[in-house]
Amino acid sequence: MHKDFNYRDKIPVAVLGATGNVGQKFVELLASHPWFELTAVAASDKSVGRPYREAVNWIMSTPLPKEIGDLQVQACKPGLPAQLIFSALDSSVAGEIEIQFAQAGNVVLSNASNHRQDADVPLLVPEVNSDHLQLLDQIKKEHKGCIVTNPNCVVVALVMALKPLVQNFGVEAMRVVTMQAVSGAGYPGVPSLDILDNVIPYIANEEEKVATEPLKILGNVEQQQIKPYSMKISAQCNRVPVTDGHMASLSIKLKGKTSLNEIKEMWRDFEGEPQLLDLPSAPKYPLVYFDEERYPQPKMHRQLGKGMSVALGRLKECPVLDYQFVLLSHNTIRGAAGSAILNAELMVKRGFIFW
Amino acid sequence: MHKDFNYRDKIPVAVLGATGNVGQKFVELLASHPWFELTAVAASDKSVGRPYREAVNWIMSTPLPKEIGDLQVQACKPGLPAQLIFSALDSSVAGEIEIQFAQAGNVVLSNASNHRQDADVPLLVPEVNSDHLQLLDQIKKEHKGCIVTNPNCVVVALVMALKPLVQNFGVEAMRVVTMQAVSGAGYPGVPSLDILDNVIPYIANEEEKVATEPLKILGNVEQQQIKPYSMKISAQCNRVPVTDGHMASLSIKLKGKTSLNEIKEMWRDFEGEPQLLDLPSAPKYPLVYFDEERYPQPKMHRQLGKGMSVALGRLKECPVLDYQFVLLSHNTIRGAAGSAILNAELMVKRGFIFW
Amino acid sequence: MHKDFNYRDKIPVAVLGATGNVGQKFVELLASHPWFELTAVAASDKSVGRPYREAVNWIMSTPLPKEIGDLQVQACKPGLPAQLIFSALDSSVAGEIEIQFAQAGNVVLSNASNHRQDADVPLLVPEVNSDHLQLLDQIKKEHKGCIVTNPNCVVVALVMALKPLVQNFGVEAMRVVTMQAVSGAGYPGVPSLDILDNVIPYIANEEEKVATEPLKILGNVEQQQIKPYSMKISAQCNRVPVTDGHMASLSIKLKGKTSLNEIKEMWRDFEGEPQLLDLPSAPKYPLVYFDEERYPQPKMHRQLGKGMSVALGRLKECPVLDYQFVLLSHNTIRGAAGSAILNAELMVKRGFIFW
Amino acid sequence: MHKDFNYRDKIPVAVLGATGNVGQKFVELLASHPWFELTAVAASDKSVGRPYREAVNWIMSTPLPKEIGDLQVQACKPGLPAQLIFSALDSSVAGEIEIQFAQAGNVVLSNASNHRQDADVPLLVPEVNSDHLQLLDQIKKEHKGCIVTNPNCVVVALVMALKPLVQNFGVEAMRVVTMQAVSGAGYPGVPSLDILDNVIPYIANEEEKVATEPLKILGNVEQQQIKPYSMKISAQCNRVPVTDGHMASLSIKLKGKTSLNEIKEMWRDFEGEPQLLDLPSAPKYPLVYFDEERYPQPKMHRQLGKGMSVALGRLKECPVLDYQFVLLSHNTIRGAAGSAILNAELMVKRGFIFW
Repeated sequence: MHKDFNYRDKIPVAVLGATGNVGQKFVELLASHPWFELTAVAASDKSVGRPYREAVNWIMSTPLPKEIGDLQVQACKPGLPAQLIFSALDSSVAGEIEIQFAQAGNVVLSNASNHRQDADVPLLVPEVNSDHLQLLDQIKKEHKGCIVTNPNCVVVALVMALKPLVQNFGVEAMRVVTMQAVSGAGYPGVPSLDILDNVIPYIANEEEKVATEPLKILGNVEQQQIKPYSMKISAQCNRVPVTDGHMASLSIKLKGKTSLNEIKEMWRDFEGEPQLLDLPSAPKYPLVYFDEERYPQPKMHRQLGKGMSVALGRLKECPVLDYQFVLLSHNTIRGAAGSAILNAELMVKRGFIFW
Repeated sequence: MHKDFNYRDKIPVAVLGATGNVGQKFVELLASHPWFELTAVAASDKSVGRPYREAVNWIMSTPLPKEIGDLQVQACKPGLPAQLIFSALDSSVAGEIEIQFAQAGNVVLSNASNHRQDADVPLLVPEVNSDHLQLLDQIKKEHKGCIVTNPNCVVVALVMALKPLVQNFGVEAMRVVTMQAVSGAGYPGVPSLDILDNVIPYIANEEEKVATEPLKILGNVEQQQIKPYSMKISAQCNRVPVTDGHMASLSIKLKGKTSLNEIKEMWRDFEGEPQLLDLPSAPKYPLVYFDEERYPQPKMHRQLGKGMSVALGRLKECPVLDYQFVLLSHNTIRGAAGSAILNAELMVKRGFIFW
Repeated sequence: MHKDFNYRDKIPVAVLGATGNVGQKFVELLASHPWFELTAVAASDKSVGRPYREAVNWIMSTPLPKEIGDLQVQACKPGLPAQLIFSALDSSVAGEIEIQFAQAGNVVLSNASNHRQDADVPLLVPEVNSDHLQLLDQIKKEHKGCIVTNPNCVVVALVMALKPLVQNFGVEAMRVVTMQAVSGAGYPGVPSLDILDNVIPYIANEEEKVATEPLKILGNVEQQQIKPYSMKISAQCNRVPVTDGHMASLSIKLKGKTSLNEIKEMWRDFEGEPQLLDLPSAPKYPLVYFDEERYPQPKMHRQLGKGMSVALGRLKECPVLDYQFVLLSHNTIRGAAGSAILNAELMVKRGFIFW
Repeated sequence: MHKDFNYRDKIPVAVLGATGNVGQKFVELLASHPWFELTAVAASDKSVGRPYREAVNWIMSTPLPKEIGDLQVQACKPGLPAQLIFSALDSSVAGEIEIQFAQAGNVVLSNASNHRQDADVPLLVPEVNSDHLQLLDQIKKEHKGCIVTNPNCVVVALVMALKPLVQNFGVEAMRVVTMQAVSGAGYPGVPSLDILDNVIPYIANEEEKVATEPLKILGNVEQQQIKPYSMKISAQCNRVPVTDGHMASLSIKLKGKTSLNEIKEMWRDFEGEPQLLDLPSAPKYPLVYFDEERYPQPKMHRQLGKGMSVALGRLKECPVLDYQFVLLSHNTIRGAAGSAILNAELMVKRGFIFW
């Protein structure tokens, strides 16, 4: 048991960048978490010292719990009353701060992009590559701190849909066009004048992340290093006037032969370690395939599995590549805060957390 | 000169299906047309006999001209006081009615899908395949009636962007994902409960049209018949909460080698017969390429060239096929009524119309 | 105990007009109801005989429960396997059908406007006028059927906010301007072309309902008749591009003197019979007043109290009348299906239902 | 003729705050102005020295003219090559800067709220109170600089609708509820996460402006001072998901008797000095009353009179006050840049400008 913390029924956790959009989603999800207790919220200097209630412009649709509103906002510096740290920091500042926390012995679950490609940092999707935690074997043995990242909001859903295909046939190429919700840009994020009655065919750095992150996630660990998966990815990313829920229209080329029905079955049967371990945030069905030709849709399906399931539909043969389909997931839950929390749950089970 | 019509300064024209969304767009565009005079509006039985003003639920953003509001709605039957007929009829009724008008000697410019694949009906985009009017050489000689169609709202823009590439290198394959405005579904069309804060990944019959119509349009006339162009097309069509302006994210595979700059130049230099003939509805620049990475956008660019230009942007190399880019056009102007009017202007110049 | 029904753990209920927007909301709310079991869904002829799953275009954001999807749609005729009938019928057909059910011995909880002003039909808001059930004393004694209506979606919220003021001071006049969600118009309802990027300053018959229904609801029962409350009401009703949640900006003139704080206290302390009886659908706080100047907002607060609370805010002195404030409620829950279910729960407690 | 300026065919003008939303609207409207030539654009330090094309995030739907894009952005300091200065500065900085320009001899047409209530500054709506320019008689005689303001975006429309009623009967009280477009908050302004699928019942300082500015505008000049009009005003201001066009639902109490028809006639006949002088930006019909019960609507009518007309509709008797109606105007044209330009045109005619 870690000496810095008193025993509690729940594991104390802290959120960095707690006033932003993803930060608030962390707070909302943690407020009712069966294992974790939010003991500290940290944010930038202008919020430090104020009650969270006043420092935050709360935009979640569930009310801010009173006891969390009462927490005094702390600075983003090591020494917070929790070993387990969720980082919703902006990538402009996350890089350095997260390292400081890891060096101070914290386990940092980061939603920022800064360390996703670091050689010793797992880019974790528990249903897909829980074996990548091997990278931290030595760190765990030595009870040191570390950083574990979750991928870009679109990428989580992509790799979950690809995983059974990669396992069974191999995927040679993917063309993906996204239609992404405004909550993906944080708060204040996208100005309403830019997006009402409009589509913006550009999201800074997004196409690059979609083209590279899946390769690490789908890669294999060989001699304590990740050997990236080999496939061609091309992406075009659009912002659309939707509050929550990223859609993608995609097409893939497989290395082997299969059929529409076989793919649908693999998706419906898909499950990973979170389901086997029955982790609190694990959706019963990680992938939900709809036969209705009008589905999935953001407004109707983003809350599937409490926002942790990925919805799929419209699988057809593609005259240019092999198969085309449509995919949807909740970008601030499965695509951000929810994924980081699921990562944390897995790490608790694996013995990384002491309290 | 055709005997049925008295000489006028302007050519008399009529609109079938004048109360619908595309019908209203025809009326709006024709109201200020330099060559054409709207002399009759026709619609379904429940409107016949009423002043157009009362029969229509006018949803255009320019006021309905008084003299057109006064027109009494007529039945969709041959005998209207115009040789030149614009059809905005729904495809559920257009098939038979358009044939009746053609057989009665009318030149029917149709926006409906029914006759687009008929062997003797040009599927016309004047900048792209004005030579397809050859199909009507005999009909013209005999002063008979005919049907000329314009393509699906997305397809017009696609073939305009593809044309210079087809001419110079050949196109082997195209993967296109569309984000289409609600006005494309007519009126009342898409219920607001379906589309506010949402994306619908399905539009009935749309993917089929996008996959087939370009082949006819880009084909060659050989022995009075059209030999379809040979290329692979795969399409995924989405409805988004935008009023007007269809976007597409696409990727293409070429038969020859080129460069980003060469493609941009070809697009910027592209012009066709409407530009050479200086037709009233011809945009000065049929294709407008933007270097700004956030462009094109529906709200900002759908009115380019009075809604008749196609906006392009974000050309990049594609890791899966060869090149990817983004495209936008106004779906009820270039994608429907405006295109039919441009077709009519070309046919006037080519001597099809007598008045 | 009523002879027509076998004993069950739950009370069997049926929904008329089950395929529409409010009908679906009934089905969604009843699916998890602790007292009621949905045993029949009825709709118009074109749906009769089909499984509900196929007859309905399900647009709720929770999945349709399998066993309800399996129900065969029945005709809207007396004889359904339930004494308790929820009517989501359109007012074009509700009038006659609801009478038939009542005459056949059913207790009909109607969301339609047809019978709201009938002398022997309570227009019920349980927190406000549960004493109006007296109107049915004789009917109850004789174990006959009856109709009980809930008010117009805006009116429910208005009378709940007014009730404590009426009780304590009397209200002389009210000016109300509404901003109403599209779900209030049913499905397909408002075309997206009409409402995207727009406001429509007109909703058919709505201003009349807002001006008259509160008078009956706030009236007193004298000699088995309702004496309407006397106050002046003027209303202007607008449709706005919001999915769910009706807002109203209003101003009132009181008959007595009070203060901002006193009014806020009365609202916060307000409760009625549903709270005292702890009815399943009763919100703990029927009225929730927010001190934040940006609240209430549809997206954030429509789900308060599971959609059964009314949110209030921005109370200020009004230079023209006395006090102005803002009000929000979920139009298809508290404003329709949820209110009818709360009415039914009260009637069960009062002994109207036999099963 | 003013010594600092060479003679030109057009009057040179400059825009302060040219990169913001209203600043861009000034640039767009001035680009094609028959009397004025935009010779300088000024903005904050971070833009100074850069070509306007690069300094601005151009969000207008007409393309930025090349020659204006080439202008180098200047600092907001006196000495710009124009006597006539349009100020689109934010109120946080406009106060001091506008005074500096006026003291340096410039005629400043300001859209900011800072000086609207200054005793020697006209709050001008040319159709309503062009006589208020008397305040500047002495300044004009001495060829000095001055500030002339246009009102808050909602207020312009309100006073135009009220003017004929004030003149003919007197207005005792007004209750107004607004539904305002997001462009009224500037750029970036309202975050999309705040307003998609939502209404915000609060706009900072707006209700105060609506309650006070009409009193000055409708006041009389007595002994070179404005005696405010006496009437009670109460306002509630809401932000709605509309790009352009402010709506208002209002009710008024008159001092005299009239009829629905008489009011409609007065509105339809209403014109002021801009119409008599045929100023370039003057709409032919300042007030347009619609009999259609669904009108006016932002999407359909905000461009009436090139955005300079005010649309009215739904006049009815009000049970609480006397008459209620609905009103719409384009908030960045008639409500901001267009009004300032119309003010400038009037001042040119009145001999304030030398060039």
